[in-house]
Amino acid sequence: MEDISSRRPLIFVGNDDGYQAGGLKFLIDIAREYGDVFVAAPSAHQSGKSSALTVDTPLRARLFGDEPGLIAYHVNGTPTDCIKLAVSNLMPRRPDIVLSGINHGYNSGNSAIYSGTMGVVFEGSFLGVPSIGFSYGDYTAAPDFSACEPVVRQMLELALAGSLPVDVCYNVNIPKCDSVAGLKAVAAAPGRWTEEYECRTDPHGYKYYWLTGKYVPSEPESDKHDLYWLQRGYATVVPCRADQTAHKAITALDNIINRK
Amino acid sequence: MEDISSRRPLIFVGNDDGYQAGGLKFLIDIAREYGDVFVAAPSAHQSGKSSALTVDTPLRARLFGDEPGLIAYHVNGTPTDCIKLAVSNLMPRRPDIVLSGINHGYNSGNSAIYSGTMGVVFEGSFLGVPSIGFSYGDYTAAPDFSACEPVVRQMLELALAGSLPVDVCYNVNIPKCDSVAGLKAVAAAPGRWTEEYECRTDPHGYKYYWLTGKYVPSEPESDKHDLYWLQRGYATVVPCRADQTAHKAITALDNIINRK
Repeated sequence: MEDISSRRPLIFVGNDDGYQAGGLKFLIDIAREYGDVFVAAPSAHQSGKSSALTVDTPLRARLFGDEPGLIAYHVNGTPTDCIKLAVSNLMPRRPDIVLSGINHGYNSGNSAIYSGTMGVVFEGSFLGVPSIGFSYGDYTAAPDFSACEPVVRQMLELALAGSLPVDVCYNVNIPKCDSVAGLKAVAAAPGRWTEEYECRTDPHGYKYYWLTGKYVPSEPESDKHDLYWLQRGYATVVPCRADQTAHKAITALDNIINRK
Repeated sequence: MEDISSRRPLIFVGNDDGYQAGGLKFLIDIAREYGDVFVAAPSAHQSGKSSALTVDTPLRARLFGDEPGLIAYHVNGTPTDCIKLAVSNLMPRRPDIVLSGINHGYNSGNSAIYSGTMGVVFEGSFLGVPSIGFSYGDYTAAPDFSACEPVVRQMLELALAGSLPVDVCYNVNIPKCDSVAGLKAVAAAPGRWTEEYECRTDPHGYKYYWLTGKYVPSEPESDKHDLYWLQRGYATVVPCRADQTAHKAITALDNIINRK
């Protein structure tokens, strides 16, 4: 812990796949080249947990890494619990940067709102520090994350240089490939999920439902959206806001409700 | 089920406090005056679940209401699971309107991002229909929701009249009072949580942490924010966007990453 209170940048790293995930280890290893690293990751797989909080049960933090320049805890909660507890009670000071991932699978299109990876990032943005989530489009059991490295380094170096605006946070997706064609700043592809649940019948004759589904973009040919570029071998970065207020709609709404 | 496929508006009602919550019953009773009502609410309390999805376990839907103009299920999942499963597999057609609540407690300031009540609303907005969450600032065991009635009716009537823009959704908070002073369209109050976890020591000498905390608004005297008006007896409505893309930041970000 002494070492981690040094003058090097303090980089928080979280994820939603759990503390044993390969994507987390890959991200930690790169981050350690740039600063001291503090990890708080879920004790178990927490995919799809969005910005969920654990309200009804207490949290416990268990140390699983303690080396020069690295402190790592796992926490029996959601991705958002992990970063909140770390910043509030475990870290020697606020982080300079928040990283999350690398997620095993995409958080493209409207998946960001369901993503525990992005839950960490939105929490980081409330701290007012550069906050970046990384997701890799590989769904195999033990992906090789090497293709992510140049993109992770580029975003991390821009953040450390103070070049990334901090009034937004960042959702980076990287296509499964040997090397990415480039990095594009775009919007999340709008669309809708179809065939969302598969209905089965249990041995006792009762129905149950599994989450599944396909995302159908509403404008698949628009080069303004992440899915378009991911399908063409590019990594994408979507700037995001944690504050969901639609500021431009306020005045018109007030006129409607107060009949002005 | 025959009755619910009529020409009356079809109103979906969900919540995050669970199907037995008083705020849900209050909202259902009002909604039934305006249309056919389809309820899908969590089997158990799901506060703070944000837009979380259940990924690893199957869902089951259990009927708990079946009357003329009302079908009601509870589902062993999150608030977002409930509306997704209902729209995908349980409802006779898409709803015309999505309502959520009435939540037992506020979803003001930046709480919306953690709110299961708002998880339902964001999901509704993906359907392209008016979607409104209601939250009441009463934290007692069995609140009297009467003060909410005029605000619920006003928002529901505006939605049914087609007067509410559907490119945004709505987060309505109502202060605990005998009668509200009015309804204001405002932004969510920016701020930060302090003293977020209380650390205790268990009988075996190990630390554990309870979520707690206070929200400290960064601009408490600004009349542009929900907390300001709630403290003065007004109900508030924050227009929200489910798409978290910061569209205005895209071009500048692309220039930074591609050194234009």
